[in-house]
Amino acid sequence: MNRFWSPIVQTLTPYVPGEQPKQTDLIKLNTNENPYPPSPRALQAMAAEAAESLRLYPDPNADRLKQAIADFHGVTPAQVFVGNGSDEVLAHTFLGLLKHDLPLLFPDISYSFYPVYSGLYEIDFVQVPLTEAFEIDPQDYQMANGGIIFPNPNAPTGRLLPLAAIETILQNNPDSVVVVDEAYIDFGGESAVALVDRYANLLVIQTLSKSRSLAGLRVGFAVGDEGLIEALERIKNSFNSYPLDRFAISGAVAAMEDRAYFSDTCQRVISTREQLAERLGELGFQVLPSAANFLFVRHPEQDGAELAARLREQSIIVRHFRQPRIDQFLRITVGTDEQSRLLLEALRQILA
Amino acid sequence: MNRFWSPIVQTLTPYVPGEQPKQTDLIKLNTNENPYPPSPRALQAMAAEAAESLRLYPDPNADRLKQAIADFHGVTPAQVFVGNGSDEVLAHTFLGLLKHDLPLLFPDISYSFYPVYSGLYEIDFVQVPLTEAFEIDPQDYQMANGGIIFPNPNAPTGRLLPLAAIETILQNNPDSVVVVDEAYIDFGGESAVALVDRYANLLVIQTLSKSRSLAGLRVGFAVGDEGLIEALERIKNSFNSYPLDRFAISGAVAAMEDRAYFSDTCQRVISTREQLAERLGELGFQVLPSAANFLFVRHPEQDGAELAARLREQSIIVRHFRQPRIDQFLRITVGTDEQSRLLLEALRQILA
Repeated sequence: MNRFWSPIVQTLTPYVPGEQPKQTDLIKLNTNENPYPPSPRALQAMAAEAAESLRLYPDPNADRLKQAIADFHGVTPAQVFVGNGSDEVLAHTFLGLLKHDLPLLFPDISYSFYPVYSGLYEIDFVQVPLTEAFEIDPQDYQMANGGIIFPNPNAPTGRLLPLAAIETILQNNPDSVVVVDEAYIDFGGESAVALVDRYANLLVIQTLSKSRSLAGLRVGFAVGDEGLIEALERIKNSFNSYPLDRFAISGAVAAMEDRAYFSDTCQRVISTREQLAERLGELGFQVLPSAANFLFVRHPEQDGAELAARLREQSIIVRHFRQPRIDQFLRITVGTDEQSRLLLEALRQILA
Repeated sequence: MNRFWSPIVQTLTPYVPGEQPKQTDLIKLNTNENPYPPSPRALQAMAAEAAESLRLYPDPNADRLKQAIADFHGVTPAQVFVGNGSDEVLAHTFLGLLKHDLPLLFPDISYSFYPVYSGLYEIDFVQVPLTEAFEIDPQDYQMANGGIIFPNPNAPTGRLLPLAAIETILQNNPDSVVVVDEAYIDFGGESAVALVDRYANLLVIQTLSKSRSLAGLRVGFAVGDEGLIEALERIKNSFNSYPLDRFAISGAVAAMEDRAYFSDTCQRVISTREQLAERLGELGFQVLPSAANFLFVRHPEQDGAELAARLREQSIIVRHFRQPRIDQFLRITVGTDEQSRLLLEALRQILA
């Protein structure tokens, strides 16, 4: 508290990201990073940017990257917006498309940054409860609203909403922007990008942090109707003309282009996830069906917070949320097969 | 215009950055980039980041960079805030420290992003006229206000305000945050960082884009009282937890540490500026005294816009602002001695 602060600052409860420990000998299964390195082509493209040209500003519009994303998704560059991580894209979306008189709707269990953005931009919101099975029910999104946002697959549950259900929500809410936050879509879901040409109120947000192993580079993007993208461009150009540096543009272009590497690493993560889910089930865990690169699990005889602490003692970090309905669950990032093995070994000891 | 836009979007007039041409054979004197490459140590540090570790998030707090900036400026890391270019630092400053009931004050001729931020965050402002000699007069900043911001040296004029004048403004406005935007301070000015321990209402903003030749990397920072920095951290953590990627953190640390290279390149720019100012004077230009890496000049017999167009025909880009009071001026970035020679040659032909 400080008398120089703008009034809004006094009211904020900032987002707290998962721990990024400086200790490097930990098994880090807490922030859903990809266990595999970025595409070698992306690494090469970024290494080449460490050059004299850094004295010059990057392209403020990142045209090359918009084109690469458009090519990947079969849309036009005017349907693409890029930002400094999907968190920045989300922030601009909240301010530019989701701030209306009627409240914004999002699930009660969801990305915990949504209420934070709402606080920052003074957006009224309603948290819509997931079903008992932790699913989004499209019928619950029919009250009057100024916008709708949800992750798909949802986080931290990992549960996937099929495209048909998303279409129901879009059709029931033709006057609202519906934002589908697809940070984890590449690990088993079908992207709503397939619907953007048919729904002028649909915005799909993705990131290169997870499925393209580039959390350290900070690149996210949105795909949607040109009218929605134009709102984001106007906000961006009133905030920071050059959000993506030269490394981010070049690395992201190469990562989008290297489709074989992308498919291969996603497939490996999916395969490890399925095996890990099965083994955890054998240990007595309830494992929610996941289409993401993490599993959301609880053990009927073990307190969630306690279990997270015991794993930490064995140098394994997972994520636990002190939050109603899910405080007995752990969110466990899918790592390599070897990391699964070490995790299961530690759990067997704890449960013994 | 689109019915899905938040109402604020309809009102925005986004900032238009100087042209970043894709053509590479131009003499680019329009966006105040440094003609010299970044520090070799910075290039090496960035090249080393093109590695497997990019799959992991960067340090959300960029502690290493805060420490390097603190060391350079003789302050503590808690007095340092870092962001994705000084434009992002400015945006957070407008929202977190300059949005009050009373109007924000800034010069009528100044960084043209200030009214844009004010529009984005709905901040009332008053543009205080510079004197006839295009100087900031501290006595003009005595009306009731909710904050004060100005570049020093001012842009696009290049004129420097001495620290004693800044202290007058600080002392006359003990209840307002005073932001000194020092994008160009390293080319001949004395930084107001020297005053931060004495004024809890002073925030100083700098960038690595100009004097450290890293416009392509997007790193800026603020130095001030811990209370002010805390407001910026709260905004940042409600917007994007990880604004600086791994390249930005490592490159900026090395650039801050390589003091010899920094001093040497700044000195070369200053020396070229002094010679160029003298030669332009000989060609009949009025040249405002500059402490920046650009010169603000007009020719009594040549229209500003026309002159810019004629230079462009000769593949030289300079910046012209269609704005009252300064529409006869050109802002010319100080490049290498060779670029000065080519510019002067082109001007001699045009004026002949």
